Amino acid sequence: MTPAEQVHPFELPHRMRGLQPTLIRQFFERALPDSINFGLGEPDLPTPDFMRQEASRVALEEQNGYTSHPGIPALRDKIAEQYPHLNLPRTGVVVTCGSQEAMTAAFLCTIDEGDEALLPNPSFPAYDACVRIAQGKPVYYRMPAGRDFGFDIEEFKKGITPRTKAAVVISPSNPTGRILTPDDLQQIAEALEGTGIWLLSDEIYSDLYFGERPRSASEFYGKTIIISGLSKSLSMTGWRLGWAACADRELINAIQVLHGFTTVCTSAITQKASLLAWTDEAEAAKKHARDVYKSRGEFLVDLFDKEMGLHATKPEGAFYSMLDVRSLGDDIDVAEKCLQNRVITVPGVAFGDEGKGFLRISFCNTEERMTEGVRRMKEVLLD
Amino acid sequence: MTPAEQVHPFELPHRMRGLQPTLIRQFFERALPDSINFGLGEPDLPTPDFMRQEASRVALEEQNGYTSHPGIPALRDKIAEQYPHLNLPRTGVVVTCGSQEAMTAAFLCTIDEGDEALLPNPSFPAYDACVRIAQGKPVYYRMPAGRDFGFDIEEFKKGITPRTKAAVVISPSNPTGRILTPDDLQQIAEALEGTGIWLLSDEIYSDLYFGERPRSASEFYGKTIIISGLSKSLSMTGWRLGWAACADRELINAIQVLHGFTTVCTSAITQKASLLAWTDEAEAAKKHARDVYKSRGEFLVDLFDKEMGLHATKPEGAFYSMLDVRSLGDDIDVAEKCLQNRVITVPGVAFGDEGKGFLRISFCNTEERMTEGVRRMKEVLLD
Repeated sequence: MTPAEQVHPFELPHRMRGLQPTLIRQFFERALPDSINFGLGEPDLPTPDFMRQEASRVALEEQNGYTSHPGIPALRDKIAEQYPHLNLPRTGVVVTCGSQEAMTAAFLCTIDEGDEALLPNPSFPAYDACVRIAQGKPVYYRMPAGRDFGFDIEEFKKGITPRTKAAVVISPSNPTGRILTPDDLQQIAEALEGTGIWLLSDEIYSDLYFGERPRSASEFYGKTIIISGLSKSLSMTGWRLGWAACADRELINAIQVLHGFTTVCTSAITQKASLLAWTDEAEAAKKHARDVYKSRGEFLVDLFDKEMGLHATKPEGAFYSMLDVRSLGDDIDVAEKCLQNRVITVPGVAFGDEGKGFLRISFCNTEERMTEGVRRMKEVLLD
Repeated sequence: MTPAEQVHPFELPHRMRGLQPTLIRQFFERALPDSINFGLGEPDLPTPDFMRQEASRVALEEQNGYTSHPGIPALRDKIAEQYPHLNLPRTGVVVTCGSQEAMTAAFLCTIDEGDEALLPNPSFPAYDACVRIAQGKPVYYRMPAGRDFGFDIEEFKKGITPRTKAAVVISPSNPTGRILTPDDLQQIAEALEGTGIWLLSDEIYSDLYFGERPRSASEFYGKTIIISGLSKSLSMTGWRLGWAACADRELINAIQVLHGFTTVCTSAITQKASLLAWTDEAEAAKKHARDVYKSRGEFLVDLFDKEMGLHATKPEGAFYSMLDVRSLGDDIDVAEKCLQNRVITVPGVAFGDEGKGFLRISFCNTEERMTEGVRRMKEVLLD
């Protein structure tokens, strides 16, 4: 028998089996023309002009070769300074191709085959996928719908087992718009202290808050890996600027090595332009985004109440609210009806079973468009 | 006992253990000021002006949000057209953050724990690292130094076992500058036919050839995953535009799903500007690069012969030659001496033991700089 004849037919490696594009994508792809989009996960505000100007200058005037694998030193310094409580050296930061690369790398560097990762329910489905790619097991802690998806330390503690190697928090939250309070973070730190569990803190929405600035989990718990980026706060989703930051040298080194073999570096043009993301102009742009989304969120929650008699969670940050449609039936059916009447929403179950009976509503839309969207929803759901 | 007390101390997951930055990096980081750089893996020619102009326009005039995960449709179409023999649909192409992301994804989608990947010796060390990240076992086939690192089908066949799931070819080669002939590729296809083994064809240097245009392995063997990009041919290393292309639907779908969870998409500015990479202007830029590197390669090989009496492989493509320093001692020692005299080279053993006794010499330098580099090498090695 030749070696060829002994080879088994090809099957995808275990890490890739059963991975599917998310339910979010599947809804998007079936949207009708001229739909009102309450499903968007990206800002509709334009990227600030100073950032575009700088990228334009860098593309024209500079040669954009490979940067240092973990990112341009000056950019890493600016990112490190954003976490003064950690007193991070430059080597504590790795710049990535969006925060998604940082998140995937954090899972691949903490989760071994059969290890458990503790994830919020509801939460962004990419966490689940990344844990599976790392051949780990996703375990969920409920953010109870009955408490408007607020944090509950007892639920969190219930999910911890001897196999837990990583836990995820996200504040402000996608999909709920809720923020973890200092008290929540203190309780999480106390529950994890001494366990060796890595806390993956997704802070991609941390500049979009409508009351107090959210605190970083890293202020409370030492073994925290911060995952963040510029996509949401400066409307730079397609620019691909994210980072991982961590005070633990072994862990951040591992992320850096993995990153070097995965993407080498993110766009040099993006990195160089992003040096302007901590200027007064940038702070003004972030503040403007906060003001706009705060006002839109209030407008939309109010509109659902007045027009449809439906409760939506009061957003504390990000640009999402969870709309309670339990009185109208199954959330996939409700979202399907909306889709047919040219309104894109995401069924809550796409984020975990705690989201069942809710729709994630994004308010990356003008008031005029949101008013028309709610009119169309009312037309198909209530009339 | 609380769960916390049962948790074992943290160890990096198996996939990350023992991974180190490459020996190449380690040499670079110790370079003295004003060194002549024969170690570079990136073009020194500037990115063509039309590409810079277009990126500048895109950054200024367009909103650059997330693109479709697998890339802008028009860009995928242009890439698919580059392989007319495959008659690829748009869905046969995934645009990635440089060819490195495509390569890593190809390994993660073909290699399961314990599977073997057959790699050239010598070759770029990132292959070895990616196989380990996929928890597979790298197995090597010799490209014999004694044959100027030419391909030998018997060596290739010897490496195939029932556990082989993937094999890598690279043409033109980093680090040798050699090209696989149609006959070599035909022999590889015959050896693999019926085995189910995926052929990962690294074609990142395919536009940089000095004689006949190299053929793609995909013209000879059906189960080929093409890995390529614009980094080398258009001097766009820091722009991060790579791709995977494959006629097999299940495999390219898996790469697309993994890519969506790893990096989401590469820079939208880069993608949109890259639509110009198949114009007459771009073809002229690629031809210019070929002419420049061909002439420099001939110049350098000649210089080593005349000035130092040393043999260097005749480059057929890319911008590398392997310099035979066996008469001068161990290649790490020789490279170290060069480094101390302000010449950066890479010891051949960094690419596998077949490279022992050689230095990889890159000719991304002007003739003037190369002349000075050889003078410094002669000074420290021969005088």
